[in-house]
Amino acid sequence: MVHILKNLPKNSLSGRIEAAMVRAVALSGSSQAPEKLLSALQYATFPGGARIRPTILTSVAMACADDQPELTDAAAAALELIHCASLVHDDLPCFDNADVRRGKPTVHRGYSEPLAILTGDSLIVLAFEALSSVPSADPARSMKLVQILAHQTGMPNGICAGQGWESEEKIDLSAYHRSKTGALFVAATQMGAVAAGQDAEQWYELGARIGEAFQVADDLRDVMFSEEELGKPAGQDILHERPNAVSELGLDGAQSRLKDILAGAISSIPSCPGEAQLAQMVTLQAKKIMPDVKTRSEV
Amino acid sequence: MVHILKNLPKNSLSGRIEAAMVRAVALSGSSQAPEKLLSALQYATFPGGARIRPTILTSVAMACADDQPELTDAAAAALELIHCASLVHDDLPCFDNADVRRGKPTVHRGYSEPLAILTGDSLIVLAFEALSSVPSADPARSMKLVQILAHQTGMPNGICAGQGWESEEKIDLSAYHRSKTGALFVAATQMGAVAAGQDAEQWYELGARIGEAFQVADDLRDVMFSEEELGKPAGQDILHERPNAVSELGLDGAQSRLKDILAGAISSIPSCPGEAQLAQMVTLQAKKIMPDVKTRSEV
Repeated sequence: MVHILKNLPKNSLSGRIEAAMVRAVALSGSSQAPEKLLSALQYATFPGGARIRPTILTSVAMACADDQPELTDAAAAALELIHCASLVHDDLPCFDNADVRRGKPTVHRGYSEPLAILTGDSLIVLAFEALSSVPSADPARSMKLVQILAHQTGMPNGICAGQGWESEEKIDLSAYHRSKTGALFVAATQMGAVAAGQDAEQWYELGARIGEAFQVADDLRDVMFSEEELGKPAGQDILHERPNAVSELGLDGAQSRLKDILAGAISSIPSCPGEAQLAQMVTLQAKKIMPDVKTRSEV
Repeated sequence: MVHILKNLPKNSLSGRIEAAMVRAVALSGSSQAPEKLLSALQYATFPGGARIRPTILTSVAMACADDQPELTDAAAAALELIHCASLVHDDLPCFDNADVRRGKPTVHRGYSEPLAILTGDSLIVLAFEALSSVPSADPARSMKLVQILAHQTGMPNGICAGQGWESEEKIDLSAYHRSKTGALFVAATQMGAVAAGQDAEQWYELGARIGEAFQVADDLRDVMFSEEELGKPAGQDILHERPNAVSELGLDGAQSRLKDILAGAISSIPSCPGEAQLAQMVTLQAKKIMPDVKTRSEV
């Protein structure tokens, strides 16, 4: 996997995150590992998507002085591994039954359904192994990272709960969005702060608001873009009768809501040494996720 | 779930383990949880099977003076949750396609396939959350528990790897058995020792040998017993063309091998305050798993 690192600018944030991912995924390899599962696990993690969650996590840690960079790296990789696991399982035939992810066949299509289930399971476990693999001067910090990651991944508040809501006849929409999409963004801001020795609580709001923005942006993209443009199937929300901000608010209403949420996110950033730079990062990430509604609607 | 505790003798080892399980599973409940997933999660964990792994873990901790009993309890529950998760996923249609487990419908039969996948995922995460939920005087001990549990669950050495071997054309039999069955017994002895402040390394052999014994006993049961007697489908190894000690060594050979392994297990117990009692416990567990071959073969 070393070739992945060669193509990235050294010392860049994305280079740092890919290097952390390579180190974490290497924990699952050995000459004694079953080859296909190992290959599927690497396939599900490289090349990655936008790596938005670890980017936010690392940016928050850097804004808080990042005094244990190895712990920050492990936390960033752990969070991204959980995200990758959720994509592999969500794509399975009994959920989204998706054929394409990140522009290539999904894991169950490229390998098999058993290997896709085991890949997701292994990635969840690997996330916690990555957190435990860094010798920390402050193991209480590492334990807090385990706790936050578990809390935002499992039941009753994490992404497992979010996916679980789709099996209910009556959906609690606010709990659904908060857990399905918001949870890992809350994990991103809180874990970034904790890795740098700060309190988690005051970083909740930034994560929650970025999560809301991301959900609305995802809803917009699902309605507006083609499978080719998205690198995954489009129109899934209508197909699976899932709630979508565009059906609720219309195209203009959803776009205006997205802008409001992002403004709120930036104003919620707690006071810290790198506050201004962090605000810039949020704006930059926002531009990446914000679909260009005007141009599109004129086409 | 409180009724579960009422039927157990207070202060017994099994009562202690069920109480630890109830506390751990309660972490996943809330009025805001999706109800079906929560129900499936409880269904997959109560009533339990023999709870052999947490019994071994707690017995080892008690043999080592058990100075942080809350941490031991969390470790015991975490290990059993991983075991329950593995059963739910192994039973899925694309693996064993089992209809019955512990005498009742498997989770995907009783609920649905999506809920079974999410139940397994949530249980894996809950295991790590349980470990992080105990305020410990010594967080380094908790982190070591996270590390051992992750190592023995994921890739390349844990039960995920074990299941992964079944997708390979050429199986490394020794790696297969060590990871598929042995891994969680190694976790049991090592986590018990670490929860009580002891070094993990010297407890590896006891766990590995109990794991080998359990594998041979399971092979014997799979061949000898009916679905009704097992509470799960019988004859699965032949059906799925999996390696089985009885096909390799014959009935007498497999039984004699089981006895040898158990003797080795007992003689490997490291010197500790409760050494004699621990040897008794291993003998007791051995009697529970040892099928009565003589009686059976005369029938």
